[in-house]
Amino acid sequence: MTTTPLSPTPRTTVGRGRNRMVEDRAALHALLADALVAHLGVTVTRDGHSHPLVLPTAYAVDLDGPDTGGTLYLHGSVAAGWLRAATDATVCVTITELDGLVTARSAFHHSMNYRSAVVIGTARAVDDPAECRHALDLIVDHMVPGRSATLRASTRKELAATAVLAVPLLEASLKARAGGPVDDPEDVAAGIWGGHIPVRRVVGAAVSDIDADVPVPADVRARAAAL
Amino acid sequence: MTTTPLSPTPRTTVGRGRNRMVEDRAALHALLADALVAHLGVTVTRDGHSHPLVLPTAYAVDLDGPDTGGTLYLHGSVAAGWLRAATDATVCVTITELDGLVTARSAFHHSMNYRSAVVIGTARAVDDPAECRHALDLIVDHMVPGRSATLRASTRKELAATAVLAVPLLEASLKARAGGPVDDPEDVAAGIWGGHIPVRRVVGAAVSDIDADVPVPADVRARAAAL
Repeated sequence: MTTTPLSPTPRTTVGRGRNRMVEDRAALHALLADALVAHLGVTVTRDGHSHPLVLPTAYAVDLDGPDTGGTLYLHGSVAAGWLRAATDATVCVTITELDGLVTARSAFHHSMNYRSAVVIGTARAVDDPAECRHALDLIVDHMVPGRSATLRASTRKELAATAVLAVPLLEASLKARAGGPVDDPEDVAAGIWGGHIPVRRVVGAAVSDIDADVPVPADVRARAAAL
Repeated sequence: MTTTPLSPTPRTTVGRGRNRMVEDRAALHALLADALVAHLGVTVTRDGHSHPLVLPTAYAVDLDGPDTGGTLYLHGSVAAGWLRAATDATVCVTITELDGLVTARSAFHHSMNYRSAVVIGTARAVDDPAECRHALDLIVDHMVPGRSATLRASTRKELAATAVLAVPLLEASLKARAGGPVDDPEDVAAGIWGGHIPVRRVVGAAVSDIDADVPVPADVRARAAAL
């Protein structure tokens, strides 16, 4: 595991809101472990005009992966246009968890509590079959820890239909906000209420498919809420 | 309120996974009402090299706004670099709600349940003071319905420090997935368990700031979980 500092380049150095900047790679890793969805930004070109495209996607992280700072893995259909646009291009992968609504004493100081990581790097198409299988296992295990080991091996056809992209975790920034509002002293002195509303993501109980007589596997039970 | 169909242009027509495409503007509006965070994609240029940047941000929607299809509003500090990069440029605003983890019978068919809107358009700097104030009220009310009417008016200084961007809702696409896995018949026949784990966002009880003797306002109580 790397101890590279966050934000080693200007493009992942936080501009506005430096007070929200977190300079701790362990905090980045914790957010990446908590969150489930990444938003991938790629530049697409159509009829000679380029524009950004942002798509939600599953992901996984290998802190011991081959890229500097560790490796962030994405996957998709080999036929997906965004995958072709991303390969060997600079992409931005942003991972955000919403933690609360900050209900300040003025509209201006309303805010949200959150943790958000921005990773910028060149996306590498993973060609090595062993790295590809490892990445796909990590993506399944990121959703449900331990699950990949309980499933049958992927077929050659399934692997051929799936593309895996790797983005180095080297260039990353992390911002976070927590707690109540930072209000103007006059508004506090006026006795106006201020506070925040915590927000969190919860999982429900596992819903069995058509085979209700097959018991829910232990890995899924551990990930889901107790019945 | 408009009834423009979704995806009126090729760049917001769903490519892969057309079975997940939702052709219903009401479903788009429902997602935009449910979600709290948007991911804004802009193209930034540094030292002559352009790359996408994706940032999380609060937002609000005015279906009767001045732009075709309704208006999506974003805001930020006038000093924010991303705001300058977005103004008069093509941006992508993606809004995603995670609804579940699809724990299929094979790694290949693992998926997520979600709703995700992609809006592509030219971001307009909102210069009209009345539209600006209206947009900021909508952003506060999107977090806590009815809240803007309970707060003091924003000062001239606060308004001068805040920039508002408008993106037309015209060019939008919506994808959604719900329910259990779509597995290979052989895996189902093999009696392997398959199913899904629902995921949802919950709010906690409002946390009062330093003034614990001031009662929590009705709008915040209505938004937060009961104590």
